[in-house]
Amino acid sequence: MKSREIHLTQHFTGPVKPDYFEMTEVDLPDPGEGEIQVKNAWLSVDPYMRGRMIGIKTYVDPFRIGAPMEGGAVGQVIKSNADGFAEGDWVMSMNGWREGWTGSAAGITKLDANLLPLEAYLGVAGLTGMTAYIGIKRMIELKEGETLWMSAAAGAVGSAGVQFAKAMGAHVIATAGGAEKTAFCSEIGADAVVDYKAVDDLAGAVREAAKPFGGVDTYFENVGGDHLQAALDVIKPFGRIAACGMIARYNDDTPLPGPTNLTQIVAKKLTIRGFIAPDHFDIYESFVSDLSSWMMAGKVKTRDTVFEGIDKTPEAFMGLFTGQNIGKMLVKL
Amino acid sequence: MKSREIHLTQHFTGPVKPDYFEMTEVDLPDPGEGEIQVKNAWLSVDPYMRGRMIGIKTYVDPFRIGAPMEGGAVGQVIKSNADGFAEGDWVMSMNGWREGWTGSAAGITKLDANLLPLEAYLGVAGLTGMTAYIGIKRMIELKEGETLWMSAAAGAVGSAGVQFAKAMGAHVIATAGGAEKTAFCSEIGADAVVDYKAVDDLAGAVREAAKPFGGVDTYFENVGGDHLQAALDVIKPFGRIAACGMIARYNDDTPLPGPTNLTQIVAKKLTIRGFIAPDHFDIYESFVSDLSSWMMAGKVKTRDTVFEGIDKTPEAFMGLFTGQNIGKMLVKL
Repeated sequence: MKSREIHLTQHFTGPVKPDYFEMTEVDLPDPGEGEIQVKNAWLSVDPYMRGRMIGIKTYVDPFRIGAPMEGGAVGQVIKSNADGFAEGDWVMSMNGWREGWTGSAAGITKLDANLLPLEAYLGVAGLTGMTAYIGIKRMIELKEGETLWMSAAAGAVGSAGVQFAKAMGAHVIATAGGAEKTAFCSEIGADAVVDYKAVDDLAGAVREAAKPFGGVDTYFENVGGDHLQAALDVIKPFGRIAACGMIARYNDDTPLPGPTNLTQIVAKKLTIRGFIAPDHFDIYESFVSDLSSWMMAGKVKTRDTVFEGIDKTPEAFMGLFTGQNIGKMLVKL
Repeated sequence: MKSREIHLTQHFTGPVKPDYFEMTEVDLPDPGEGEIQVKNAWLSVDPYMRGRMIGIKTYVDPFRIGAPMEGGAVGQVIKSNADGFAEGDWVMSMNGWREGWTGSAAGITKLDANLLPLEAYLGVAGLTGMTAYIGIKRMIELKEGETLWMSAAAGAVGSAGVQFAKAMGAHVIATAGGAEKTAFCSEIGADAVVDYKAVDDLAGAVREAAKPFGGVDTYFENVGGDHLQAALDVIKPFGRIAACGMIARYNDDTPLPGPTNLTQIVAKKLTIRGFIAPDHFDIYESFVSDLSSWMMAGKVKTRDTVFEGIDKTPEAFMGLFTGQNIGKMLVKL
């Protein structure tokens, strides 16, 4: 099988440009002992990938130049030389940004194509959903009746989190940019929605929106910058903040200064916890159990933004930073 | 009894000026039912008081204009009209910034003058020591063998914290400004000391100092600004930060921007916890028990910076922001 794949041409800071990616075609070898050959059907692009393009080790190694990029991918086994994997099996791997791959079956997860739509394994039922779940459940420890401010609430993690928080009996204030996104936030059950692009005073608008619910107890940080400043301003004493991303900051050419009101951390006795999902796989069973019951009760809707074709993968990825996606950003092959 | 007391003349932001204080003399009434009259001997001045001078409610109400300031004070009962209090008893109150007071005995703590020097009840055995203890024990959850970076380590909270952390079996990197302060940090047992005024690259200097101990696991934030920036840079993944103050920020005329590297909170999966001691009085017994055993084992030395006379109280307070104190800043009457 031939496979087209996307390579990174250089490490960089600042905005992502199309030049930084190139597509090449390779011949996939037949699978050796313990290996499988997989044809990918769905690829995930995620904000965290930006960190691996800088060339500095953060929580994972940088992407290598001249090697295929990596990322979540759902595909179907074409040839198998590994116990437990048969032709036609659906699997999830980190071998994304490519049409297919031959490699070890170790660590590859088999998927049940009857249980959920395949692409959901990259979204609400995958790392994206787990990230929202961990943030709300383990970092924030959200309680019934409390109020959560979800930033980037129409995004992949945000829209999952809004619905999980509602299912847990909390009030949710959602912020998002533009009419289509705010409408989506209402549709998935946010109690109040603020269009951050339409207000001058984000803190004031969120404070007002949260008034009927007794104010903002907790904040889910996906954005950084002015959103974090507003959150520190608005949040009530003893507030808890979970931070799994600060997308507004990832493409800065030079690092920009942070909020001017960090002393609120002391004054309000806040807790801020940064996290990434892979450190919390021990929560997986609890996640699957909660998610299943919420889905069966019709409490979780999903929506994806889909680009088609391997060549569109860089465009899909770049779209994350200009707010092109509602729900999960995916590439369909 | 006549008592001179310090009033605040106005609320303000920016640097503290002598004009903002005035001294007046009052006649203390005889104690009514349930009241005592106390002659103060030691007054505490603390950075947190700055927040109450702005005129905005933070975690406590602002100081009132034209009323005596408040703060920790140790004094002796002169007249008693309250059960359980006799002339000559030593007591601790929040009725500081004045030579004496007549008021309710409710909530007033009797002190054992034989157990500790009286002024220690305002320092290592008082809220100052408790703040260091809570930060290390409850916020950071410091473990034996880990490395703590203590900022403002020659200060009241800092110097207590350095010794508590050492007593708990941790390694301590201390930062302080100037030769006299760094010498004091070594004297109280810090494993390595960095003079932040003498280095261009604070993060680099701390990283180097922490190398023999495997790097910085945890950070105790008393300073803010460049110290927080350096801490986010230096601290290891899963690092824990306790923040009980950011003294470098309290006198800003206009709020200054925060660190440019807040995305490290996510990348390194850090936990930052702001706190103030009065929310954690439930830890008091554990604190007294640990402190007593450490003191008996000779593991806790104290040093105070003492101004004499009620009229010197504003000067002592202002000295906190220009780094005049080594150890606890006190006023002796």
